[in-house]
Amino acid sequence: MINTDSMKTRRTVRSYSERPVDEDLLHSLLETAFRASNTGNMQAYSVIITRDPQRKQLLAPCHFNQPQVTQAPVVLTFCADFNRFSKWCEQRKATPGFNNLQAFTYAAIDTIIVAQAFCTAAEENGLGICYLGTTTYNASQISDVLGLPGLVVPVTTVTLGYPKETDTTPLPDRLPLQAIIHEEVYQDYSALNIDQFFSLKESLLENRRFVEINAKDTLAQVFTDIRYTKKDNVYFSKAWMEALRQQGYLD
Amino acid sequence: MINTDSMKTRRTVRSYSERPVDEDLLHSLLETAFRASNTGNMQAYSVIITRDPQRKQLLAPCHFNQPQVTQAPVVLTFCADFNRFSKWCEQRKATPGFNNLQAFTYAAIDTIIVAQAFCTAAEENGLGICYLGTTTYNASQISDVLGLPGLVVPVTTVTLGYPKETDTTPLPDRLPLQAIIHEEVYQDYSALNIDQFFSLKESLLENRRFVEINAKDTLAQVFTDIRYTKKDNVYFSKAWMEALRQQGYLD
Repeated sequence: MINTDSMKTRRTVRSYSERPVDEDLLHSLLETAFRASNTGNMQAYSVIITRDPQRKQLLAPCHFNQPQVTQAPVVLTFCADFNRFSKWCEQRKATPGFNNLQAFTYAAIDTIIVAQAFCTAAEENGLGICYLGTTTYNASQISDVLGLPGLVVPVTTVTLGYPKETDTTPLPDRLPLQAIIHEEVYQDYSALNIDQFFSLKESLLENRRFVEINAKDTLAQVFTDIRYTKKDNVYFSKAWMEALRQQGYLD
Repeated sequence: MINTDSMKTRRTVRSYSERPVDEDLLHSLLETAFRASNTGNMQAYSVIITRDPQRKQLLAPCHFNQPQVTQAPVVLTFCADFNRFSKWCEQRKATPGFNNLQAFTYAAIDTIIVAQAFCTAAEENGLGICYLGTTTYNASQISDVLGLPGLVVPVTTVTLGYPKETDTTPLPDRLPLQAIIHEEVYQDYSALNIDQFFSLKESLLENRRFVEINAKDTLAQVFTDIRYTKKDNVYFSKAWMEALRQQGYLD
């Protein structure tokens, strides 16, 4: 049996050393990731590799200037891509029909599967990664910076490099297993379940400080009033829908 | 550290032995997967574990009766889930705003990240997996079978078990690395690129047989006219949009 303990103690890396990422290694890790399962073996994804500091400067505002975009040696933008496959169809007397939400959805799922397979392979080789969830917030701007044609949509971004230092702080908390799994059918949560499942998160010193610094009553309010507000979610839902339309997936 | 060579030689497993999947192992693999990155550490996902043969019989038609649904010892339905987190917010004087497309999107991305982390961990422990892309086709029916409440949407399904036999056939083909990666900006494909990148796929005996059996001119036509038709994609786009609306993500 192979040891997967390293996956249990992994952590996100946001600060990278000067050590460059070898191109052959990067390509090998990507090839490993492309062995993951995908829909109909159509491989409806592309990966844009950004190493150029000027291009990173252009990408940075799309990710709200999170410092790892310019600081990481490599930025990878994982895109759902039915452009390549559709071009092949057209060149072979076949009429492609992938300009719709369902095709986007399976392309996007396959794209994330590849991204996560890549991240595991990278971490197992001593590299550190950070996912940028901002990708779907500003997909239209990212498409402009990377020159993405129709049927190509950025779905997630990963910054990559060797960790600057060994992080010895405790791993981030996770909900108890029983909070997430359901046997046979979904067991909806009682008030007591919710209290129990979130008690560890609420008790952490770091989270209690968050509440205090933000002058809130509860940790949940830090999420709803500051970090993931309804207003922002609604705004970026429209932008995301617009990006899908612009890239031709809502025809 | 896991040896990432095994990730390069992995393959989908659709036929499972009688050997049961130990519950402690399954839970440990899920806990490992839940260490993967997620948005804001909200863990907006749930996993429904199906072992009951009768429940599998109910799920089977949702997956167009693919035999692995009833044959696999375990079926895992990975769901985007903002129900639990929203309930916590409401219980803590916070007003959740996750009933929209952007929140669904980051929940769905985190769900797929967890699914793939799980699959890698499972394969490293000798298990075999098969993804069922049919999940987003019939999300509404699956929601009924599994009793999913609002803000819970099935995004992918994985069948799990020990492989029935060692598969010694060649690994499925993949496009060349250069077909998928782009340096700095997207390089769109010339007709020559397309010919080159798809030539291996088109040359394979199995694929040439597909063309012949289906009485088509080209392999691409097998995809567009039979396997992934525009008509089906449009039909299942509407069903998917309707499922998202029904589960409360398009308010």
